[in-house]
Amino acid sequence: MTVDTTGGGDRQGRPRDETAGPAIMTAARALVLAHGYDGVSIADIIRSAGVSRQTLYRRWPTKAALVLEAFFQGAVAPPDMESGACRTALADFLQRLFDQLTREGDAIRSLIAQTVADADFAVLFRDRFVRPRERMVSDLLETAVARGELGAQTDIPVATAMLHGAFWYRLLNAEPLDRSFALALTAQVFGPPP
Amino acid sequence: MTVDTTGGGDRQGRPRDETAGPAIMTAARALVLAHGYDGVSIADIIRSAGVSRQTLYRRWPTKAALVLEAFFQGAVAPPDMESGACRTALADFLQRLFDQLTREGDAIRSLIAQTVADADFAVLFRDRFVRPRERMVSDLLETAVARGELGAQTDIPVATAMLHGAFWYRLLNAEPLDRSFALALTAQVFGPPP
Repeated sequence: MTVDTTGGGDRQGRPRDETAGPAIMTAARALVLAHGYDGVSIADIIRSAGVSRQTLYRRWPTKAALVLEAFFQGAVAPPDMESGACRTALADFLQRLFDQLTREGDAIRSLIAQTVADADFAVLFRDRFVRPRERMVSDLLETAVARGELGAQTDIPVATAMLHGAFWYRLLNAEPLDRSFALALTAQVFGPPP
Repeated sequence: MTVDTTGGGDRQGRPRDETAGPAIMTAARALVLAHGYDGVSIADIIRSAGVSRQTLYRRWPTKAALVLEAFFQGAVAPPDMESGACRTALADFLQRLFDQLTREGDAIRSLIAQTVADADFAVLFRDRFVRPRERMVSDLLETAVARGELGAQTDIPVATAMLHGAFWYRLLNAEPLDRSFALALTAQVFGPPP
């Protein structure tokens, strides 16, 4: 075992590269988009990003942690509840999400399949990808209840599971995720448009 | 290539075995429950059922077709709309389904994962497993609209996707599928209990 006395393992003569992190995430995301989670190795990501193995492992302990961060950061922005009604914010959020899923569906499906094969990955996927995204929708529904856009009896966890579940279901069954589906789901939660 | 002139390839001296089909399906189902779809071969099923390769292939052209039929036949009975309200029939159906998914979730997850890896399997899974089960729920919702238990404006395809999606989502995220979730989903569709 060697002891690193430089404060940065791969700095031997090279300046610390602040762009390494983003380059690694961009490479990880692009490779998984092209080949699926199972079709990409850490070695592929290192080669594509042009960094050392040490640089990658200093930031991410596993391929799973890296890929999930890369996909979550590359995902859609949270709903915007400040500029208008929660109903509009939900429809807009779902549509942005569906645009992403339409482009990147194969890669997301490969992540879901990985959860079945690998219990450790399943826990990370749930904590770092599913839960934060779920939270965006439950925050929106809580705001809608607080503003009186939804009734106080709204079952927020169940409505959140139904919304997410509906597009996972369509994604996994290779069915279209389009604007009309975003509007229809919104109407199921908020009632028919005014 | 040999030509079968007996009208039944494995009848040489043996009586035609009417129990072979059920034995093959029982074996296929038990093996996939124990080892997942990917962990079971046609050879395993033949050995376990005690039939010839020819007997199996005469009835099912592929492992996929056999396993999907075995799982669909072993699945829950359709909702019973004759003995009461559609709302009660839905809650009861969901609960029976959740009992099954709680026992057999790993195997069903392995079938869903297989759809990601194998496009031909995905088509069969959708046509022989997903669609028929979806039809049970959309038939129920149509009956509810016809009887006035649901409003005429009910978006049946979207409500069906939300119901199925919600439990796929919980199943894939290893969350509980219990009676309270069955009742909560029913209330989302039919409104709060009377």
